[in-house]
Amino acid sequence: MTAGKLIMVPGPTNVPDRVMKAMLKPMIDHRSPEFKALYASVTENLRYLFQTESDVFVLTVSGTGGVECMVGNTVNPGDKIVVPVFGLFSERLKEAISRKGGRPVELPSRWGAAPTADRIKKTVEEERDTKAIAIVYNETSTGVSVRDLPEIGDIAKENNLLLLVDAVSILGGDELPVDKWGVDICVTASQKCVACPPGLALLSVSDRAWEVIGETERPYYFDMVEMRRYAERKETPFTPALPLFFALDEALEMISREGLENRFERHKGCSNAFYDALEAMGLAPFPDREVRSNTVIAFNKPSGIDNAEVRRVMSDRYNVVIAGGAGKLKDAIFRIGCMGIVSETETLLTVNALENTLTQLGHQVDRGAAMEAARRRFRT
Amino acid sequence: MTAGKLIMVPGPTNVPDRVMKAMLKPMIDHRSPEFKALYASVTENLRYLFQTESDVFVLTVSGTGGVECMVGNTVNPGDKIVVPVFGLFSERLKEAISRKGGRPVELPSRWGAAPTADRIKKTVEEERDTKAIAIVYNETSTGVSVRDLPEIGDIAKENNLLLLVDAVSILGGDELPVDKWGVDICVTASQKCVACPPGLALLSVSDRAWEVIGETERPYYFDMVEMRRYAERKETPFTPALPLFFALDEALEMISREGLENRFERHKGCSNAFYDALEAMGLAPFPDREVRSNTVIAFNKPSGIDNAEVRRVMSDRYNVVIAGGAGKLKDAIFRIGCMGIVSETETLLTVNALENTLTQLGHQVDRGAAMEAARRRFRT
Repeated sequence: MTAGKLIMVPGPTNVPDRVMKAMLKPMIDHRSPEFKALYASVTENLRYLFQTESDVFVLTVSGTGGVECMVGNTVNPGDKIVVPVFGLFSERLKEAISRKGGRPVELPSRWGAAPTADRIKKTVEEERDTKAIAIVYNETSTGVSVRDLPEIGDIAKENNLLLLVDAVSILGGDELPVDKWGVDICVTASQKCVACPPGLALLSVSDRAWEVIGETERPYYFDMVEMRRYAERKETPFTPALPLFFALDEALEMISREGLENRFERHKGCSNAFYDALEAMGLAPFPDREVRSNTVIAFNKPSGIDNAEVRRVMSDRYNVVIAGGAGKLKDAIFRIGCMGIVSETETLLTVNALENTLTQLGHQVDRGAAMEAARRRFRT
Repeated sequence: MTAGKLIMVPGPTNVPDRVMKAMLKPMIDHRSPEFKALYASVTENLRYLFQTESDVFVLTVSGTGGVECMVGNTVNPGDKIVVPVFGLFSERLKEAISRKGGRPVELPSRWGAAPTADRIKKTVEEERDTKAIAIVYNETSTGVSVRDLPEIGDIAKENNLLLLVDAVSILGGDELPVDKWGVDICVTASQKCVACPPGLALLSVSDRAWEVIGETERPYYFDMVEMRRYAERKETPFTPALPLFFALDEALEMISREGLENRFERHKGCSNAFYDALEAMGLAPFPDREVRSNTVIAFNKPSGIDNAEVRRVMSDRYNVVIAGGAGKLKDAIFRIGCMGIVSETETLLTVNALENTLTQLGHQVDRGAAMEAARRRFRT
């Protein structure tokens, strides 16, 4: 990596040197055999990442563009979609459904809690003409993972509903076997757990989803039927962001080589170290214990210190960048991205910076306890 | 540039080394002061490029995504939009309008010809409840530039219509003073005359356009009101493709330093050299003489040789990549991108490769005449 700061926000995240350098590959024609080979390589490794035998696509857009694509290809005006809302990104998902003319059946939860399979089951049984369940698997704004997702997949299957999953801040960092769990469309973005620069959305599409897509009024730029047509000749309908494609190819190659299980274990190990360190500093995680995310660590700001000031000192003095809250939690919480290349090194550097900064700003902590708690997790 | 082939397709085009290397800048948080500074720098140079005092935006999408954004923010279901159709990309523009529920009033022209101001004036006067004129300034599929665009701007103003311009394959390579010509929304893409890698769309928006945008059912990912809201704090609503932003900043810096007039002259000089060389080889430009583009050189394939074979030999033996036709012209024509960094060097290398390849494949040409014709244009 070029000498920069340690970017520990919940995306974009730190990108390995070799992934960055892949962007420098010479420009190619996106209708050439060279691109077709790149497309084939990316597709193969994407199927491994999503754990799917179905279709996978790369879009030249941000993650939210991927979500818009998922919604735009499945929701027609008037369609009833069950959507749990428990943070900013699930609100965005609901909003995207409304903009398409859909009727979201909103299942609100307290921010910090996760929607449960039971509640979704009840709603689905009440709302008989529901078409799909649309859900954020990992709420980047609250650090909550929906641990009931496999059961929610069963509910979708039993009721013949589509399951649409926004996995932007988690896919590649925690378990999500798309086929096994019955996810019909799954969306993620390049700059989170995949450890690639931002600018690409990645999607998987099940056979069942294709039936619905074919009957949907699809937006032009996001038309998945066109994407599939071009995919047959290993091309994209429109000019792709070539340097990002090269980078993605390299990043996916690294994931395949590491192995998904190892990667998930690594993320889990680092998140455990973060949660232990927070506890040692007397800092309370924002989410409920049983739904804490392994990829986004959210915790309450201690009273009496300024959110922006903590982040400024961490960035200026320790070169470690973490995030404040999003939306209504802006000043109330901090968020750390535990994503992509995260390892013992990044974890300890972040804990060190946080402990020192809090001390410097007058927040009483047991010096050394957090580092020791984190280090303990990495001892084999 | 990393040692690759000379990419002479009508985008993506060759990217200067320093623009490529800018992508390697360390990852930053897109909600940080560093990004705000980058945003400010890009915005200032974009205004220069578009020759506008109005708002300018960068979107993480392909050029077609930029077109979808323009249409999505201005067209409501039932809106009547006059759209000249004279090639593949104007067909796409019409299709994007239809998908949004608009009623395109199609003005078809022969492929190779350009729509005229007279014809548009007549149509606008007949179709009294028209809301906008949507037009492709440079048809990438036929190598045609709409030379009447200033007059079309006058017609739009006189009739109180919006003027929506797809300038994807021309902005930065030929004259287009957005404010002076009365263009309300202008779209281009990063990988054409701006000489940046693909993955970003660039837009300008006039005050008059904002009035319409405010009353339009806007798509979620492309919502320009949200873009303007975030622009106030020098941010984008969603995570931007950061490496491409860094590259764009560098590419725009180079444009500002060269100066638009010099840049347009350079493109014109190279295109003149190409047209002279074609004539010397007995190859007929596809478009009518008076509407030939300075950025996309389209010409008929001589009979008796294979389109793909010509391009294969040029690429494999001479490392020069040109394009065949698009859509229904796929095998009938060749297209050369005369864009971005194009200079005497790229022009002569391409002419040399083309002349040698045609000769090798049995097409009779006056050896050396094409090179001499091209070289004459560069003599001062």
